[in-house]
Amino acid sequence: MKRIVTGALLIAFALTVVFLPDQFQWVLGLACAVLAEMALFEYLRLANKTGANVTYWLVMLVAAVFIFISYRLPDYQMQTLSLVSLLLLIVSVFTAPLNRILPDAAYGFFGLLYAVYPWTLLPIFRSQSNGRGLLIFLLVSVWSGDIFALYAGKRWGRHKLALELSPGKTWEGAVGSMLGSLFFATVLLLIDFGVARQFNYVLFGYMEATWQWSLVVPWLLLAALLNVAAQVGDLAESALKRGAGVKDSGDLLPGHGGILDRIDGLLLAAPVLWCIESLRDYAFFSRFFSRF
Amino acid sequence: MKRIVTGALLIAFALTVVFLPDQFQWVLGLACAVLAEMALFEYLRLANKTGANVTYWLVMLVAAVFIFISYRLPDYQMQTLSLVSLLLLIVSVFTAPLNRILPDAAYGFFGLLYAVYPWTLLPIFRSQSNGRGLLIFLLVSVWSGDIFALYAGKRWGRHKLALELSPGKTWEGAVGSMLGSLFFATVLLLIDFGVARQFNYVLFGYMEATWQWSLVVPWLLLAALLNVAAQVGDLAESALKRGAGVKDSGDLLPGHGGILDRIDGLLLAAPVLWCIESLRDYAFFSRFFSRF
Repeated sequence: MKRIVTGALLIAFALTVVFLPDQFQWVLGLACAVLAEMALFEYLRLANKTGANVTYWLVMLVAAVFIFISYRLPDYQMQTLSLVSLLLLIVSVFTAPLNRILPDAAYGFFGLLYAVYPWTLLPIFRSQSNGRGLLIFLLVSVWSGDIFALYAGKRWGRHKLALELSPGKTWEGAVGSMLGSLFFATVLLLIDFGVARQFNYVLFGYMEATWQWSLVVPWLLLAALLNVAAQVGDLAESALKRGAGVKDSGDLLPGHGGILDRIDGLLLAAPVLWCIESLRDYAFFSRFFSRF
Repeated sequence: MKRIVTGALLIAFALTVVFLPDQFQWVLGLACAVLAEMALFEYLRLANKTGANVTYWLVMLVAAVFIFISYRLPDYQMQTLSLVSLLLLIVSVFTAPLNRILPDAAYGFFGLLYAVYPWTLLPIFRSQSNGRGLLIFLLVSVWSGDIFALYAGKRWGRHKLALELSPGKTWEGAVGSMLGSLFFATVLLLIDFGVARQFNYVLFGYMEATWQWSLVVPWLLLAALLNVAAQVGDLAESALKRGAGVKDSGDLLPGHGGILDRIDGLLLAAPVLWCIESLRDYAFFSRFFSRF
């Protein structure tokens, strides 16, 4: 029960933030920054239980710089990431014991890419022409998969997916997750098409005014790809937790464990979506992904 | 003697590659790719001596992908880096023992940023309008500092700079290094000015046809900044080596130790130069760095 209430509140909050008018995009930016720092904190706790000895405030400070510059100058993420990482290395060199320099810098840096970078992409998606649609598509592909996996796994689950990494997961749950994502993606496409035809208003921007099968296929492929990324992300986070010998990454969300447990799928799905989005610019892919 | 011959051959090779005509920029790209893989190999050896257990061929393979895409599509470095890093993580998840997943992914990923990323920037510098000039300026700032540091340190060195990190380094050597970089940067500016005036030909592109003091100042500041970055990079690499308990990073270059020993300064100086270059785009800095 607690789990369902928390989940519903989270979904309502996410939808509100995504649908705020353009001049309130900074609210999304701020929410992502807070969530990124929370995810990073939980990651660093896991890392320190796996043998690292990272200074929390230092990594969280350079993460804040990275998040802020990514928000203001998204074209310079690579330069910013390299600069803050070199800063991490330099501070480690001058403050850490000799045999801790490389591990601490490496663990801290990996946290920036694993737990922080995906959050910096959400405001970038939002700023695109069909930004709200992209964000909703991403969240729905990831979350509906989560929910269906739970249900299908409980109902039919028999064959273990990866016993050592995450003993609760089954192949039946994984298939349910994929079907859930495809189902909800279809619902989104239908809503978009229906709203566009009824009210002559582009709600998500997947379809514009005319239903075209040729546009449905790439969107469903994208949903499937995001679902796979999310499931692998889920497995990866479970593996990191088990490597650190803990069950939940934190206890921030009643009934859901930590932040990292709840958004583990997003941490892989968001970068994958960003890569797919980036392919649009190039002529070679331009026909296949023409309306993305 | 061996040391001097090797050094002279390296400098001659570097100058040749930098000054090749535009249609042979791929030679620079190829040379950088080879050097990056060699540096990465030595880094991974250090990492594995510091407690990592990274699979060489896997990291070197994703590094090759990163290098190639960086060369073809430099605007998509961030996406590529995130994708290959997620690949590293996923392969670790499915192949490494549970408690090795996070460390192996983190060490591998740090190697991409520390030992590989700087090399991908050199072809990017070369492709700019005063690309040759930028590269020569970078190499001269880093290498002349190295040479002067050695001489000044041997002649006057008395006060240890960072005994624990690198016992051979002295403050006198560090000051000598800085003066060496400034001296050779001035020489480059004078050559550029002289050639431009005598032959009406832009050799490096620092000065164009008229000598302007207002242009000398930012170039010398840049030389000083690159020198500091190179010296810190030198210290960082010494620290990593001592953390791993080895003296030389490798034995590829007669009299010079490994590749990593020879290019440690460049690994920090190149990203710093790239950040400075990127600042040029923005109005706030445009006046100060107007001719960069």
